[in-house]
Amino acid sequence: MEKNQKVGVIIAAAGEGRRMNGVDKVFASLAGRPVLARVIDVFASVKAVNRIVVLVNENNLERCRQLIAAEHWPLPVVYGSGGQRRQDSVAAGLTLLEDCDWIIVHDGARPLVTSDLITRGLQAAAETGAAAAAVPVTDTIKLAGDDLIVKETLPRANLWAVQTPQVFRYDIISRAYARLTAEVTDDASLVEKYGGRVRLYQGAYDNIKLTSPGDLARAGILLERRGK
Amino acid sequence: MEKNQKVGVIIAAAGEGRRMNGVDKVFASLAGRPVLARVIDVFASVKAVNRIVVLVNENNLERCRQLIAAEHWPLPVVYGSGGQRRQDSVAAGLTLLEDCDWIIVHDGARPLVTSDLITRGLQAAAETGAAAAAVPVTDTIKLAGDDLIVKETLPRANLWAVQTPQVFRYDIISRAYARLTAEVTDDASLVEKYGGRVRLYQGAYDNIKLTSPGDLARAGILLERRGK
Repeated sequence: MEKNQKVGVIIAAAGEGRRMNGVDKVFASLAGRPVLARVIDVFASVKAVNRIVVLVNENNLERCRQLIAAEHWPLPVVYGSGGQRRQDSVAAGLTLLEDCDWIIVHDGARPLVTSDLITRGLQAAAETGAAAAAVPVTDTIKLAGDDLIVKETLPRANLWAVQTPQVFRYDIISRAYARLTAEVTDDASLVEKYGGRVRLYQGAYDNIKLTSPGDLARAGILLERRGK
Repeated sequence: MEKNQKVGVIIAAAGEGRRMNGVDKVFASLAGRPVLARVIDVFASVKAVNRIVVLVNENNLERCRQLIAAEHWPLPVVYGSGGQRRQDSVAAGLTLLEDCDWIIVHDGARPLVTSDLITRGLQAAAETGAAAAAVPVTDTIKLAGDDLIVKETLPRANLWAVQTPQVFRYDIISRAYARLTAEVTDDASLVEKYGGRVRLYQGAYDNIKLTSPGDLARAGILLERRGK
């Protein structure tokens, strides 16, 4: 990343609107602070970051407005309506960040992101213009036919489970989105599809995505442990 | 499985000896009961199961003896020393279960196994003689080169993350182990290697393996939720 280049962050928190125990998980409290506020805290703490856009679903617009109004982050944090699919949120974010040179996409439901992960993502993206946090796969992964008979156990070496942050040069991600026709859940794969080279960089096993009950408690313990 | 066939269970709890917060995780308390006791409870509740062998590491032999002595399971539960690698535990278990027709291998650190998972495993193994619980992969998995540049994002369809229980006809698993030379962490893949056909069956996302701090709390919440 060159000097004076602008970095915008898209926090996808709309597709994340499924409810865990009656509370939208990005607004759930994690160690006394809403998940979404924690995510913004971390991005706001990174000096290279200039602007943050949060995409939530329609029902949460007012709640998001209130959350942002109550805070004093040292950079502009705006919000918008995300739409049904994750990609609609990212697309909406891109139109709000047209003046940026670099885009960081992050899942709103990954509150354990760190400034280190963000900074290393920006560094990793420098060469090819696209980078994604990822961790070596620990599960044994098998490929099976429709009859459920195993065809192959994949060699674990060089297999990575992808996370966010994902970092893109603005022109690369916006061009990929302009060509998007099908549903996509991973932005990096969209860039790959149109010939872009994506570099993985070491994510963190504790950079979990809150998806099922128990994840919030788990995140709380991981967070507490980190404080020690 | 035919009538009168004997089913033996190998609980691999030695390779699982890494410590979480100073306590070996299989002896840690989960909702007031040691993880290992919970695992045995579930297998002991399945009518088709005839014998259980628990393999722990040397340091835990006495602890395991005490745990078993204090319980009254309705079937023989024995224990032994597991050795350094997971496969040493399974091999030791096989020699203790030579009179069995079927072997179920289970990770001691997966206390959320259910009798349903075990029963369906026995059914799934009937045809090919080998079955493994597995869940569809939810992460995006990428294959990268040593330079960390993505080569391919694997199509998620037909990719499975393997769990235990894994069920094998005795002759199939014992023959595979007799030929074993390298390190192996997944018994099903060993059977595949020697030409066996392994059938996957639907595992459960909450059938988690306790590996990192926070997992025990998560397991507690998943367990509590199940009770409702």
